[in-house]
Amino acid sequence: MGKNRLEAFSDGVIAIIITIMVLELRVPQGVTFSALEPVIPVFLSYVLSFAYLGIYWNNHHHMLHTCEKVTGPILWANLHLLFWLSLIPFTTGWMGENHFATAPSALYGVVLLMAACAYRILQQLIIASQGRDSLLKKAIGSDWKGKLSPVLYAAAILVAFWSHWVSQGIYVLVALFWLIPDRRIERVLATKKT
Amino acid sequence: MGKNRLEAFSDGVIAIIITIMVLELRVPQGVTFSALEPVIPVFLSYVLSFAYLGIYWNNHHHMLHTCEKVTGPILWANLHLLFWLSLIPFTTGWMGENHFATAPSALYGVVLLMAACAYRILQQLIIASQGRDSLLKKAIGSDWKGKLSPVLYAAAILVAFWSHWVSQGIYVLVALFWLIPDRRIERVLATKKT
Amino acid sequence: MGKNRLEAFSDGVIAIIITIMVLELRVPQGVTFSALEPVIPVFLSYVLSFAYLGIYWNNHHHMLHTCEKVTGPILWANLHLLFWLSLIPFTTGWMGENHFATAPSALYGVVLLMAACAYRILQQLIIASQGRDSLLKKAIGSDWKGKLSPVLYAAAILVAFWSHWVSQGIYVLVALFWLIPDRRIERVLATKKT
Amino acid sequence: MGKNRLEAFSDGVIAIIITIMVLELRVPQGVTFSALEPVIPVFLSYVLSFAYLGIYWNNHHHMLHTCEKVTGPILWANLHLLFWLSLIPFTTGWMGENHFATAPSALYGVVLLMAACAYRILQQLIIASQGRDSLLKKAIGSDWKGKLSPVLYAAAILVAFWSHWVSQGIYVLVALFWLIPDRRIERVLATKKT
Repeated sequence: MGKNRLEAFSDGVIAIIITIMVLELRVPQGVTFSALEPVIPVFLSYVLSFAYLGIYWNNHHHMLHTCEKVTGPILWANLHLLFWLSLIPFTTGWMGENHFATAPSALYGVVLLMAACAYRILQQLIIASQGRDSLLKKAIGSDWKGKLSPVLYAAAILVAFWSHWVSQGIYVLVALFWLIPDRRIERVLATKKT
Repeated sequence: MGKNRLEAFSDGVIAIIITIMVLELRVPQGVTFSALEPVIPVFLSYVLSFAYLGIYWNNHHHMLHTCEKVTGPILWANLHLLFWLSLIPFTTGWMGENHFATAPSALYGVVLLMAACAYRILQQLIIASQGRDSLLKKAIGSDWKGKLSPVLYAAAILVAFWSHWVSQGIYVLVALFWLIPDRRIERVLATKKT
Repeated sequence: MGKNRLEAFSDGVIAIIITIMVLELRVPQGVTFSALEPVIPVFLSYVLSFAYLGIYWNNHHHMLHTCEKVTGPILWANLHLLFWLSLIPFTTGWMGENHFATAPSALYGVVLLMAACAYRILQQLIIASQGRDSLLKKAIGSDWKGKLSPVLYAAAILVAFWSHWVSQGIYVLVALFWLIPDRRIERVLATKKT
Repeated sequence: MGKNRLEAFSDGVIAIIITIMVLELRVPQGVTFSALEPVIPVFLSYVLSFAYLGIYWNNHHHMLHTCEKVTGPILWANLHLLFWLSLIPFTTGWMGENHFATAPSALYGVVLLMAACAYRILQQLIIASQGRDSLLKKAIGSDWKGKLSPVLYAAAILVAFWSHWVSQGIYVLVALFWLIPDRRIERVLATKKT
């Protein structure tokens, strides 16, 4: 079974998630620039989540690039990942409308943590389906980013009860070190061709 | 006529249905974890419907895989299926916001029943278009899941007037036995290649 | 330039239009079946518009099938068609929530009329781009459906001021005679191959 | 890495942005034609933004047509462009609901300006990735439209504080001269083939 339809469906869902988040940016009542003020935290949380979804789309793109055979478990692991990503608009809206308060910040981290776990499950299933000489396994190498992120999300959830600004700092930090594009897979693929 | 555009359109519609359901998860007013309480039943109904739509996408994917020629009636039977699926966000929202009460639980079953019938019509049309040696017919075999599901949905609709929790149990049960991926088609395709 | 991206974009837009219409079906307040009563006219207008959008997608699919070269004017004529189709959720919602009253019924017809004109413009541009032996021109033949529909829409708009139920009857009638799939193009394509 | 998935994802996001804008066109309360009156400015701002998004989709389509290799930076520059485009429904809604007042008109220009800058960054990255004989560089030539537009947007933002109608005139003007399809790339591609 080909992977084209899996990619197309995932792209569709991620594209819709990324776009309906903007519906949380409600048109303000007033007509002056000051009317935009309450929208600012919602906008900032939108920027953060847009970056996260962009990262997921980007990495998902690279990961599936190495995958040749789509099995039943891979299909379901992919839907499981999309499920957690689909909750991001909800947690983003709650966090933005409440100025990054404790409970919404913690819940935001919970959804990020679950999505990261779902991503790892999908990654492991693809590696397993590729057998001993897994291209993806070589490509991700030590995968320190993939291993560190869930730990940082878990830390951010706990820290939120002490200072929700530190949690936000952690979320931004994790996003930043993922924004550096994942050259590993490109490199391994390039090596393979030569 | 190719089937690519049919697949792409169906993927698009299912991806949007699955994602706009999350808009029913309204951002809660409060800022504490207890503010999430009224969202919980809506969330649970979302999980159930996400699973059902995932199942439909998955099976639709497998079924179209065997289909080579898309005729006019197949196009319309596919739109008919998408019509019933498109009502799932509505019934999910009504059911979740009313804590799985009798009338919403029954209506939820009605839409599932109609979608199941629409799926069977589409399946029969594809089999008919494939002629005597239909690959799909061989692949689905006795199709006990496909035959049992509508019966169970009908039972759940009736049972809802007596106990809506038993109805919910039936919906979860049917989803669970579909979640086991449909290996039949994969197996028949594999056999064919050898 | 290929037509794949044009098809994919059109599919995406039509898939979203068809699906966001369902958002007009607001979750009712009550918990009994009688709470569904005010939703019924909205549901009926949804069924009608779903059928119309399905017809447009279907015919668009067939029409582009004959098109080999996508020019700038074709791109814009296609966007023009999508523009009018994108207004259907608005007119559907207005019509359904006001029980098919005069003004909404007339406006519904105006949007259908404009979409039909946009479709014809697109069709003429594709025929013109194909030169003298246009496959599409042969395929549509006398195109009586395409010529009659705008006339009937215009009649329905005028008639709405006298009896809006007659207008609705005309809309249903036009939808019904389009629902018969357009075999002309399939037939001409089949002839060409032999 | 292929560009197909980049195109598909961009198409998906632009298709959704263009369509959810229509959700700002709220179904009016009244049942007469006069109830449509408050919707008119929202409709006009929708027409303008639909044209802009159509232009972006069209030009994006042509630009990627020349691109053969998708690098990490190109992926991110593309997401950056989609980010600014995704804010258009918000600024469109604010502008339409406030009858093109000063602050919303200026903000509308800011988002158009940022999107234009993002587009140029993406264009430069594609040119850079193509090396010395860049096909895209040849195709865009002097690129006077691309250079003039940001200047006009900046002017419109400033002018809005003096007369917001002049700003609107500038936005319409810029849209109009982009609506003339970009034949340059088609021409260069045609030359290349011969």
